[in-house]
Amino acid sequence: MLRRASVRVCLGRALRLSSIPPPTSTSSYHSSHLPRTTAFFLSRTMSTFHQEPHKLLVIPGPIEVTDEVLYANAHPSMSHISPDFIPVFGDAIRMTREVLFTQDAQPFLIAGSGTLGWDQVAANLVEPGENALVLNSGYFGDSFADCLRTYGAVVDEIKAPFGGTVPLSEIEAALKSKKYKLVTFTHVDTSTGVLSDARGIAATVRSASPDTLVVADAVCSVASEEIRFDAWGLDVVLTASQKGLGTPPGLSILVASQRAIKTFESRKSPVTSYYASWTKWLPIMQAYESGNAAYFATPPVNLIYAYNASLRQITGATPSLEERFRLHRESSQRVKKEAEQLGFKQLPLDPSIAANGMTALWFPEGLAAADLLPSLAKKDVVVAGGLHKDYKLKYFRIGHMGVSAIDSQRGDIDKVIAALKESLAEAKAKKA
Amino acid sequence: MLRRASVRVCLGRALRLSSIPPPTSTSSYHSSHLPRTTAFFLSRTMSTFHQEPHKLLVIPGPIEVTDEVLYANAHPSMSHISPDFIPVFGDAIRMTREVLFTQDAQPFLIAGSGTLGWDQVAANLVEPGENALVLNSGYFGDSFADCLRTYGAVVDEIKAPFGGTVPLSEIEAALKSKKYKLVTFTHVDTSTGVLSDARGIAATVRSASPDTLVVADAVCSVASEEIRFDAWGLDVVLTASQKGLGTPPGLSILVASQRAIKTFESRKSPVTSYYASWTKWLPIMQAYESGNAAYFATPPVNLIYAYNASLRQITGATPSLEERFRLHRESSQRVKKEAEQLGFKQLPLDPSIAANGMTALWFPEGLAAADLLPSLAKKDVVVAGGLHKDYKLKYFRIGHMGVSAIDSQRGDIDKVIAALKESLAEAKAKKA
Repeated sequence: MLRRASVRVCLGRALRLSSIPPPTSTSSYHSSHLPRTTAFFLSRTMSTFHQEPHKLLVIPGPIEVTDEVLYANAHPSMSHISPDFIPVFGDAIRMTREVLFTQDAQPFLIAGSGTLGWDQVAANLVEPGENALVLNSGYFGDSFADCLRTYGAVVDEIKAPFGGTVPLSEIEAALKSKKYKLVTFTHVDTSTGVLSDARGIAATVRSASPDTLVVADAVCSVASEEIRFDAWGLDVVLTASQKGLGTPPGLSILVASQRAIKTFESRKSPVTSYYASWTKWLPIMQAYESGNAAYFATPPVNLIYAYNASLRQITGATPSLEERFRLHRESSQRVKKEAEQLGFKQLPLDPSIAANGMTALWFPEGLAAADLLPSLAKKDVVVAGGLHKDYKLKYFRIGHMGVSAIDSQRGDIDKVIAALKESLAEAKAKKA
Repeated sequence: MLRRASVRVCLGRALRLSSIPPPTSTSSYHSSHLPRTTAFFLSRTMSTFHQEPHKLLVIPGPIEVTDEVLYANAHPSMSHISPDFIPVFGDAIRMTREVLFTQDAQPFLIAGSGTLGWDQVAANLVEPGENALVLNSGYFGDSFADCLRTYGAVVDEIKAPFGGTVPLSEIEAALKSKKYKLVTFTHVDTSTGVLSDARGIAATVRSASPDTLVVADAVCSVASEEIRFDAWGLDVVLTASQKGLGTPPGLSILVASQRAIKTFESRKSPVTSYYASWTKWLPIMQAYESGNAAYFATPPVNLIYAYNASLRQITGATPSLEERFRLHRESSQRVKKEAEQLGFKQLPLDPSIAANGMTALWFPEGLAAADLLPSLAKKDVVVAGGLHKDYKLKYFRIGHMGVSAIDSQRGDIDKVIAALKESLAEAKAKKA
């Protein structure tokens, strides 16, 4: 079986050279031993596949995905240990590293929602009774703390004001007053659109408490916000498939530093989850990456094909990752400026902490969700309401990640802005 | 938003009456308040979608799936709280009940592999220090026991001989000697093709220890073996999307009796998992079934569309569920008889305990995996090797579930048998 796998991999290389852009120079790909898989989705029938007409989905995830990705999700059933599938999985692992600019961190790709990433952190990296510090900037900070406590961590939280972030000085003070096994923060809190300073937080932790692990809940930021895993000194970045990574939901994606893996390996107590246990998953990820199959649980084969297809687009030469981040910033600025000109105020307390992949806006005085969101939906533009118990009826959220942000020819951003203008004018006219 | 949902649901009813077969009389569907969703996949472009040519996948899961199911998996991105998606999820919950012939058991549909079902049982139904009895008929019994211990259960195992089942008398004796919170068994052990007597086990437990919960690991049996959840008195049936249910992998499907839910609700200690916690998921399932959205983690939207599409085929009028089980038995008998005529011996120790959705066969004397499996693959027939540490090179497994078993026009069973004959002849000729 192995020999046959090798033959296919060589075939993959031949196809790759002729049809797929080479990896970028920032890639960890050069150091890997296996070339990327064949362009399985560029098949003879792909050209006839176009996704159904539908309303434009501009919520902060799931996001619009390309026909290529959806077609890969409709791949015929394959054995999870097939020599055709193994390199598709292995390449998805390798390309995940590229997106985060890391050379040797360990990705975990597991069937599950993004939430499963919290369980992975709580069950593998913290032992019962150990301290964890949660930098809480919204709904998802509350939940991560809840998850950590479920597995026995003793959790302290520093709560940011609604729409704000936790000052680095407070993090430093907390780390100097107590020993923490890890610090978590929400890179972009999907509930508020607040962007935390991942680099600054990592630097602060590294300086104040070098042994403390730095864990980024980056569900709503990977591939839409720049993340330099190695350069910034992160230990865990956890995310999901359905946001910046442009894939249907159902895949929990987590990347752990070798330092985090060592922490896991030197646990004194056994891991307290079965499905989220790295004891089970680490050998599986290592096997697939090295070109072999291994079994713990059946991987979500079709979704891995889809994720691979999306990663190929994201890590392809045009646009480069850097350009991709710039395009996200530009689309974000367009939405935010137009919204402000229309009289919407942003939820984040300062422009410097507003996410680039989404925009959270207060409804103007006198207007509420019911005045705007159904009207936008009638114009085939689906945005999201609020998601924070105290304020959820007072603001709404627009997502601008992935193809909607980077492919201006689609006109998604234009459509969002035009619909927002019209719906606002209609709502005001009704109230007048 | 709710009002809009109602409008869409009414539209769904109108379409349903004209285009979709009525539910079967065994269905729990009559008692539900919402009609099934519109035939979303019977769209204008569906007719042009055909999955890529590929090798016939006849392993015991993932299995071959229909074009309709794959097309649903390629559904455009949708909000997980969209009024269009809510009834798709709700109907998937209702149709899951139909497949198991239950009126009021509670389905859980969660992004994850089948393995996650074990975590759900271990984390929600057993409290640390409580006793669990595992009827172990192979690889998956070992793993379920491992999972239960991870969450603190005190596990006893009754191990069946390889290829056999645990006698009911031994179960009865164990239950009389000790109080068990639950008994688990593997309905069809994918590693051996052994079918346990679910009805007999449930009756034995009910009689010997009425309070003990009966948990069926039915990953490799739901929709290919008859399961009468209510009539047999089962408490948990856990499965996954990629076997008899004919959907790509990535969905953990579990159905719990109201008695199991009560056991969960009267726990003394908190649930020891976050992602697998019914405290989190029960309100979500109840919300979607009643036509409302709720959020804990983003559901695998596309996979729910695909699962819904497959369930519509499975619970449709033709073939009925009863006919579907009969067709599985017939396809199974064809494979088993032809294989025996060719000189293959079945792994299950007695024909009465051989699964109907798969066949496990010892290689004939003098032949091994390398002599047959690559040759079958060359004929575009993908079967599975052994999966049990002591014997894995000595036997192989053929899956015949879902469309391969019930749609004779596809010719899948013919193709498997023909390839097996040819490959065996070639292998014998080489050895001669």
